Order: sequence, then structure tokens, then C-alpha cells
Amino acid sequence: MLQKYPSALLEDAVNEFAKLPGIGRKTALRLALHALKRTQEEVTAFGSAIIRLRDEVRRCKVCHNICDDDVCSICNDPARDASLVCVVENIKDVMAIENTGQFKGLYHVLGGIISPMEGIGPADLEIESLIARIRSGEVKEIILALSTTMEGDTTNFYIYRKLSGIDIRVSVIARGVSIGDEIEYTDEITLGRSIINRTAFNDSFKI
Amino acid sequence: MLQKYPSALLEDAVNEFAKLPGIGRKTALRLALHALKRTQEEVTAFGSAIIRLRDEVRRCKVCHNICDDDVCSICNDPARDASLVCVVENIKDVMAIENTGQFKGLYHVLGGIISPMEGIGPADLEIESLIARIRSGEVKEIILALSTTMEGDTTNFYIYRKLSGIDIRVSVIARGVSIGDEIEYTDEITLGRSIINRTAFNDSFKI
Repeated sequence: MLQKYPSALLEDAVNEFAKLPGIGRKTALRLALHALKRTQEEVTAFGSAIIRLRDEVRRCKVCHNICDDDVCSICNDPARDASLVCVVENIKDVMAIENTGQFKGLYHVLGGIISPMEGIGPADLEIESLIARIRSGEVKEIILALSTTMEGDTTNFYIYRKLSGIDIRVSVIARGVSIGDEIEYTDEITLGRSIINRTAFNDSFKI
Repeated sequence: MLQKYPSALLEDAVNEFAKLPGIGRKTALRLALHALKRTQEEVTAFGSAIIRLRDEVRRCKVCHNICDDDVCSICNDPARDASLVCVVENIKDVMAIENTGQFKGLYHVLGGIISPMEGIGPADLEIESLIARIRSGEVKEIILALSTTMEGDTTNFYIYRKLSGIDIRVSVIARGVSIGDEIEYTDEITLGRSIINRTAFNDSFKI
């Protein structure tokens, strides 16, 4: 049923909240009414933080991760290994890998993966800039860390072909049984890969 | 683990989203990143709608419902019965009752209910203005539509006592078995009330 709102301002705010992913109209109303319980300063801080994020955030010239300057703090960090570049789909993947604390190289954010279904081709992604970055020298190894889907595999293969003739080591992140998973319930493809790509027993204690 | 953000602007936006009720840090990040996928105009419209709601929304002088003018559209509607006033806790209750399409009187929004546990006393609520509104004439009946909790009952009783000596009909909304509920699973108090407050069989077809 069409909800009637006592105020056009409230209706506008509810409509805006309801445009957010995963927020239905009921939750949108709850969030809008919450704004009425907060101080004017708090609500202004909320609204302007979102507007400023969209207006002022930038992309790193080197790796295309989001940042507040020309070059991101990771690319700018002299302690990191610039010869090792991890290729990821988006900035959330960078954050996920950073949180593991296991990677000390740099990143390259493609901004998506090749998906003919969604009309995303190689030209829509930061693949040319990756190749240029590699050709410019310093990089000795790239690690492909894309989703283990058909689109991810397609993108991996496209990049691999583009690199033919360039002297660089190309690796992919290990696919295998997740930590905490039971063998009995692991799908056959993952289990098969985990046997083919088995590692020396001592290596499994590295993390 | 403490999440590292590639941008202070992103971190601010995530912090602000995470202050909303029911939004955790993971969802806050998803909502903030969503802002980066929308146009600058869309994000500005979002932020300013929330800020404008807080800055410009007003309270109806008569019923204290939120509105965009001095007096709300319900109180201003000549087709509604000004002799009948439904007393509710908050503006969400007004919206819920309006959505039933069953009520053609006016409202009075208390802005809460008496709750010693949360330090809310009668002076914090719009009870004096309700009494003044009733004393001024026109109102012939008030319907108490507060929650069926101890706090709701306390508030009902407080208002009822305040009205002693004033010639007005005081009613409460019917409590009984919800439409669609099975008798077998209804709690005893509700079921008991539904028998004591039974209505004529013909009346039950009114809705």
C-alpha cells in the first residue's frame, strides 16, 4: 500500500535512503526518523561526509585504488616491495588482502572483471595501464587475485595473453580447501584443485 | 580487527553510516562505496535531503505531528472530525493508523510514553497541551492508542486521571486476537481480554 507521509521533507529523505542497496522503504523510514532525533550538527556531519566522499575522493595514478592524493599511501610506502603487484577487481579486495597482513607488495585495481553478460570488456578496465606499468620496468611478478568465477578466469587468461613476450612471472592465488572446512563437504572442483596444487607440508605452517 | 581505509574521506563516510541504527561497519562500507558508483548530483541529492529534513521539518502547533508548515495537513483538513482525537506515542503511529484508512478524526502526538526507567516523565511529553486542547472545547472523545505495555498503561492512566472532571469520552483501542492468529497460540492475557471485550457478531464485519 502507498504510504502517506506527513511531510514532503520526510518523504524526500525516505526516498533517498530507499535508493541505497539493501535498504527497503521500512528501514528507510526508520533511518529518516532517526535523523530527527539527532542534533543538527550530527546530521550535517553525516550528510556532508557522504557528499565530500563523492566530490573529493581520488584515484591513485599508479594502482587506481581510491585515495585522498595523487598517489595512494600503499604505492607511496618505501617499505613495500614494488617488484610484486597483486591484481584485484576492486578496492574492497585491496582492503581484504591488506587486512590479512600477509602481502607487502603493491596493487593494481582493475575496476571490474571482463563480463560479456554485463557488457564489460577489456577496454572498460585498467588493463592497458597494468601492461604499461609492467613494461616500464620495476615489476618482476604479478599475482592474479580475481574471483574464482568464469569471468575471473576469463580476465586472468586475457591478462596472461597480453603479457606474452614480456619477461615477468605470473602467478595466481592458491585455490583450495578453506581453513576450517571439512573435506567431506568440499565441492569436487575445489577438492580436485587442492590435490593437484598440493604444497610441501612445511609450507602449510607459514601463516 | 581494525580495518584500514585507503582514504580518510572513505573512513569518515563509513563512520557516519555506522552511526545509523542497525547499520554495522560492513554494511556502512558497502553503502559508502555505493556512493562512489553514483553521480555527484545523486549523492548531493541524498546528503542534502537528509540535512534539509533535520533543518527544516516542523511540528504541527495543534497535534505535534511533523509537517512542513505551522499546522499539519491532517489538522488542516476540513473533512476530518475535529471532535475525535486519537492520542499516540509518535509520528510512526500516526502513519500506521492513517494507512488503515479507518480513522477520520485528528491526532495528538505525545512524543513518547511515561517511562521511569528511561527518565521520561509526564512533563517531557505533550500531555499538558493535550489537556489544554481538550479544555478549549471542540473535542468530544479521545481514543488512547498507546502500546499495550506497562509504560503505555501508565501513560493511559495518567491522562485518564488528568481528565477527571472534564466532560469527555475516553476510549482505548480494542485489544484482542490479531487477524490471522490462531486461538491455540494466543497468549492467555490477550485471549482473556478478547473474551471480556467481545463485540456483537455483526460488528466484526465492519472492516
